[in-house]
Amino acid sequence: MAIDSLRRNSIVETLKRSDLAAMASLSATEVLLLTGYWPVLGQSLAVFSREGESYCIVPEDELELAKKTSDAEFIPYKPATLEKLTSPAAALIQPTRELFSRLKLSSGDVGTDLDAGMTAMAYQSVSRFRATVVSLLASVGADLRAVSADGLLARLKSVKTPIEIDRIRHASKLALKGFKEASEAIAAGRREDEVAADIEAAFSCIAHDGFERGRGYFFCMSGPNSAKAAGAYARTRRRVLEQGDLAMIHANTVGDGYWTDITRTFVVEVKRPTQQQQHMEGAIAEARSAALRQVAPGIQAREVDAAARAVLVRHGFGAEFSHPTGHGVGFAAADPNALPRIHPKSPDILKAGMTFNIEPAIYCDGIGGMRHCDMVACSASGADVLSNLTETLNEARVPDYGSRAEPFHRAHRRTRG
Amino acid sequence: MAIDSLRRNSIVETLKRSDLAAMASLSATEVLLLTGYWPVLGQSLAVFSREGESYCIVPEDELELAKKTSDAEFIPYKPATLEKLTSPAAALIQPTRELFSRLKLSSGDVGTDLDAGMTAMAYQSVSRFRATVVSLLASVGADLRAVSADGLLARLKSVKTPIEIDRIRHASKLALKGFKEASEAIAAGRREDEVAADIEAAFSCIAHDGFERGRGYFFCMSGPNSAKAAGAYARTRRRVLEQGDLAMIHANTVGDGYWTDITRTFVVEVKRPTQQQQHMEGAIAEARSAALRQVAPGIQAREVDAAARAVLVRHGFGAEFSHPTGHGVGFAAADPNALPRIHPKSPDILKAGMTFNIEPAIYCDGIGGMRHCDMVACSASGADVLSNLTETLNEARVPDYGSRAEPFHRAHRRTRG
Repeated sequence: MAIDSLRRNSIVETLKRSDLAAMASLSATEVLLLTGYWPVLGQSLAVFSREGESYCIVPEDELELAKKTSDAEFIPYKPATLEKLTSPAAALIQPTRELFSRLKLSSGDVGTDLDAGMTAMAYQSVSRFRATVVSLLASVGADLRAVSADGLLARLKSVKTPIEIDRIRHASKLALKGFKEASEAIAAGRREDEVAADIEAAFSCIAHDGFERGRGYFFCMSGPNSAKAAGAYARTRRRVLEQGDLAMIHANTVGDGYWTDITRTFVVEVKRPTQQQQHMEGAIAEARSAALRQVAPGIQAREVDAAARAVLVRHGFGAEFSHPTGHGVGFAAADPNALPRIHPKSPDILKAGMTFNIEPAIYCDGIGGMRHCDMVACSASGADVLSNLTETLNEARVPDYGSRAEPFHRAHRRTRG
Repeated sequence: MAIDSLRRNSIVETLKRSDLAAMASLSATEVLLLTGYWPVLGQSLAVFSREGESYCIVPEDELELAKKTSDAEFIPYKPATLEKLTSPAAALIQPTRELFSRLKLSSGDVGTDLDAGMTAMAYQSVSRFRATVVSLLASVGADLRAVSADGLLARLKSVKTPIEIDRIRHASKLALKGFKEASEAIAAGRREDEVAADIEAAFSCIAHDGFERGRGYFFCMSGPNSAKAAGAYARTRRRVLEQGDLAMIHANTVGDGYWTDITRTFVVEVKRPTQQQQHMEGAIAEARSAALRQVAPGIQAREVDAAARAVLVRHGFGAEFSHPTGHGVGFAAADPNALPRIHPKSPDILKAGMTFNIEPAIYCDGIGGMRHCDMVACSASGADVLSNLTETLNEARVPDYGSRAEPFHRAHRRTRG
């Protein structure tokens, strides 16, 4: 994907409102934001000029891939050679000097990311530059200074362009194919890790649809383990599923750097869930609808949280909904501090183009947990659900999704060879 | 796994030889080194005292897992709450103050990792603290200073204890189960991504054997794509395998933070490889043996590279072996700068306990590539191959592995339902 004109404009406006001579970053997510290319090894330097030009110094092994996904100007370099022991940090100095010289950037503040935050992985092993962008710029010019643009970058990342939203919607659709596999893979007598493996395998086969690089991380948490999903991370264990269990399937899928965060909860091999399970299902569906109805530009994010929370409190599940209703997702995978924070104390205001998850849930310690997590974009006309399982075209823009819109699903045994 | 006494001793010795008051790190790999626990979300602070005590401030959601894998002292904290908007970096300040106060550490240099490097991922989204460990320590005490201990940490990580080598050997064995699946999954008419998905699924099911957390990343590169594997990263595409193709399967597996790097090359559905393929096979097997024969404590790493390279040059494949013979693996997954660097210009000396890969390869542009990558430990008696496919117990310590020790494999069609 080329860096689209709306994204370019948003960065140029940010640069004009600030005193920054340029933006530069060595972090993969920020490189994606500034150039449209998601680096594999995280060894690429993005530089975005006040004139709206996007440059990227990339490892030569990534050049072909980079050019396929963006029309920024790519300058290849060799992070390693047989002739000399070097490192990406050292090898970047000369091409960075040449680029800054060509751009006549010899003084001023260059905005970059220096604060702590979360990063979503592009590969199993990636470069971390820590704060060495500071010394890199210092080695380029004595009058150049790396300054924190963390707040500006967080706001830029929070609002997506229509092209970016389409990428996220597409990555969400990939995940849903995994969930179809889930409804087959979940059966009494199977282990959580077997179920998760089946789903990831099914996903892997279609992960490249429309993307140069795609992957899906699927987790299966069943019975009492599904209550532990209240924690900050998902974890597949070796527990054997039993009939009537809640089986929570959590997914983070990614296509070319655009991430999703989606959860569905299944009931294992029963025609009729228990009364308690039905009560949980109804409460979560109602909380989801209440939250989605609030979504609109100008609305406070904490009102969205309050709407979902009030429903769950009214149903007697206040203490069992122990986390915020959502957070920004798209450039981030699972970062509770990505904007907008749909948290009781959030000062954030929703804007058109923001993408986030809505994840009402009930976790009953020792018994089971149920969560329904959707990917949502804030559009001028309200919530645009990017992760509808049914894939009916119209449903996506209907503000009220109905009180029983697939909050959970019955899984039936599949015969396996 | 508890932090073993040999590891503890090695850190204590390093601290005594330096002017450091302690070691501290927020980076997952360094936390594993200093505490024996591999953090999920990378939001844990490890502190190792001159007295040899190991402390770790962990998110409360990780406490149970941490205690299962290490007997360091774990201090839980809340990186996020519903009552207040906060961040891990902010939430860590108070418990860090309390810990340093308890340890009476109020002044001096604290060694940490500040340089650029590579990091292997524990989860799909993890915290990055960049250089904020500097401000964290400054907030703890005005006379405390974070200083770079990058060189010390790199050397500590390069030499593993017997217990750590056993973990890496076990992670290697996990990978080999994936390769057995590969010999079934590879067939003419199947796509690279289908093959890779099958292997990962098979792996996933056994990934937890003996580990709390395990995963495997498998890549399939066939025909001309296998020649592109000379690059710095592996990439599965959608190419359809053809009879007679070289099909390279690359794996990085991990168990509780201990990584492997293993490659095997198959020939798709033929009884007799071409003469050229047999020539490549023979040259790689010979280069592997030559490299392994060199491995011993006190040997220069570049002699190991030279031994493999000389064989491939003699067979006319000098230009086609375009990367170093190996690099450190274990705490790192795929970091060409991890010690020891088995590179023509390396100044590194092999020590007993070092673990690395040996990856002789031949890449013929546009035609195909063949690589055989093993995990190896340097023992007092020579090379200890951690990734033998045959799993015969004795073979592992035999210096000469035979000239035809499975450098590649014939894959036969498997019927799939």
